[in-house]
Amino acid sequence: MNAINHQFRLAARPVGLPKRTDWSFVEEPVPAPPDGQLLVRVLYISLDPAMRGWMNEGRSYVPPVGIGEVMRALAVGRVVESKHPGFAAGDFVSGAFGMQEYALSDGKGVTKVDTAFAPLPAFLHVLGMPALTAYFGLLDVGKAKEGDTVVVSGAAGAVGSVVGQIAKIKGCRAVGIAGGPEKCRYVVDELGFDAAIDYKAEKVRAALGPHCPKGVDVYFDNVGGEILDDVLTRLARGARIVICGAISQYNNTTPVKGPSNYMSLLVNRASMTGMVVFDFAARYGEALRDMGGWYKAGRLKSRVDIVKGLETFPDTLLKLFSGTNDGKLVLQVAEE
Amino acid sequence: MNAINHQFRLAARPVGLPKRTDWSFVEEPVPAPPDGQLLVRVLYISLDPAMRGWMNEGRSYVPPVGIGEVMRALAVGRVVESKHPGFAAGDFVSGAFGMQEYALSDGKGVTKVDTAFAPLPAFLHVLGMPALTAYFGLLDVGKAKEGDTVVVSGAAGAVGSVVGQIAKIKGCRAVGIAGGPEKCRYVVDELGFDAAIDYKAEKVRAALGPHCPKGVDVYFDNVGGEILDDVLTRLARGARIVICGAISQYNNTTPVKGPSNYMSLLVNRASMTGMVVFDFAARYGEALRDMGGWYKAGRLKSRVDIVKGLETFPDTLLKLFSGTNDGKLVLQVAEE
Repeated sequence: MNAINHQFRLAARPVGLPKRTDWSFVEEPVPAPPDGQLLVRVLYISLDPAMRGWMNEGRSYVPPVGIGEVMRALAVGRVVESKHPGFAAGDFVSGAFGMQEYALSDGKGVTKVDTAFAPLPAFLHVLGMPALTAYFGLLDVGKAKEGDTVVVSGAAGAVGSVVGQIAKIKGCRAVGIAGGPEKCRYVVDELGFDAAIDYKAEKVRAALGPHCPKGVDVYFDNVGGEILDDVLTRLARGARIVICGAISQYNNTTPVKGPSNYMSLLVNRASMTGMVVFDFAARYGEALRDMGGWYKAGRLKSRVDIVKGLETFPDTLLKLFSGTNDGKLVLQVAEE
Repeated sequence: MNAINHQFRLAARPVGLPKRTDWSFVEEPVPAPPDGQLLVRVLYISLDPAMRGWMNEGRSYVPPVGIGEVMRALAVGRVVESKHPGFAAGDFVSGAFGMQEYALSDGKGVTKVDTAFAPLPAFLHVLGMPALTAYFGLLDVGKAKEGDTVVVSGAAGAVGSVVGQIAKIKGCRAVGIAGGPEKCRYVVDELGFDAAIDYKAEKVRAALGPHCPKGVDVYFDNVGGEILDDVLTRLARGARIVICGAISQYNNTTPVKGPSNYMSLLVNRASMTGMVVFDFAARYGEALRDMGGWYKAGRLKSRVDIVKGLETFPDTLLKLFSGTNDGKLVLQVAEE
């Protein structure tokens, strides 16, 4: 092959919002796969808030992306050439292929996906990692059960939108918190949430009262900051807070705002528990069977915001932090 | 009877540290018990950090003490006169008798105590509520198990001193955080903790490293504030933080300092859970059997700081917040 592989590599650790100069855009010849490996043409790349954390130095739940390394990213693509017994040219696959057009892989963590079952981007959302995060966070960590009131922030986002839909499937009351009337309308009218609070227009603390008359049993937190503090004032006895993310704090250049109202955990005998979806890897199959069934039955809807062009990555990523993405944010790198 | 009952009643809701003028000191004739009630001569009254919370308005795990009401307090005393079938004059009893010299009671929540088994003040400490809090907080909420590293703040205090001793009994490594060299020496040399950190002289975050080489499995928090943030940086995978109190924040006139490092819960798949000992009331007997056995075997030690005179209450209470009490703080109201 004479094709060129374009890549984004991490050039500097960002301070605050990632800037264009925190990346280097690199061209390399596309390699031929050695024995035991496969070469994937990357088609769609998932853009996730967690990426911001991966760019920081220091211990976290995964090692940081090293300076000079291809940016870590989940993606779906098609096998171009395979010297791996488990894959053949033409297979559609998902894996951590990185922010690039072509990826070599030894097949670890790579799974085949069935494009007859769902369009390819769905495997980065309701049949992929964001949905797995929602599923295990809500049901295993949050222990949501029928009759519970579930509140989720980032409700129109990749994870939050699935949290609310699974909550409804499980017989919970689902209340979303999102920014702007369009997102609020979307989660209620299209996704079937019971209610939504527009944090840009309403006082979240006050609005939670009427929407959660029996208090909040499960709070699935994607945002942190003031909204976490607001929800803490509305906990039901024995509430479970699932800490999945804190997007409001990821680009801080000042210390993270800790939840001032955390003593509500004591008053309400409540818990706050951090989760990382990778811990549930042994049970992904079980969750994907459930979600595949709900998806086919029309009970699990996905809206994907597809932006074309690998080269747009530095700017497109920022949509997550300004909240201007409309659904699960995906970069389309090539035509299918 | 012609005796006089002296009482402290709440006169105003304190702003910051409680002042003398937040109390009224009242004299009343000692009442005769009506049918079904008993009259108790209060002998020792427990002074607890939780009292500060009971003085605030607003919803908490118990209703606030009303303005004009006798201050809520746990105590031990002797039955003077009984028209209750379960109690007789001369019985030693414990209960929520309040900040006063004599208490009428209908017997609810009152238990007889055996002064042949232990001196009376012990029933306010290692055989009373602070020890029950330590027991259920450490073992049920914190799920401490053999081999765990347990860190406790307020380690020389009524609850913390028992947490560390039970941790040792259960085969854990016990690390205390306390203020000043004398308290640190006490918890290590007399109570058998493995190590102690003097937060007034050392950087807690740095000191935790060598004392907790495998990270912190259970953190039993009595203090909140900076120390909670320091411990959050040292969690082991799957750590459990027990939120029992936040004495560093109780007299704030500014908002509570929330834990900035709470995202460590995510990185470490850790939890932070609030506890109120009253929830375990059905199992007090089980815990007291364990603790009575350890006490008799010399494995559960108690140091009680006895201050004489009900009238000293407003000042004596402040010892808890300045950390100048030497062991479990008890007010002696009358000679046994």
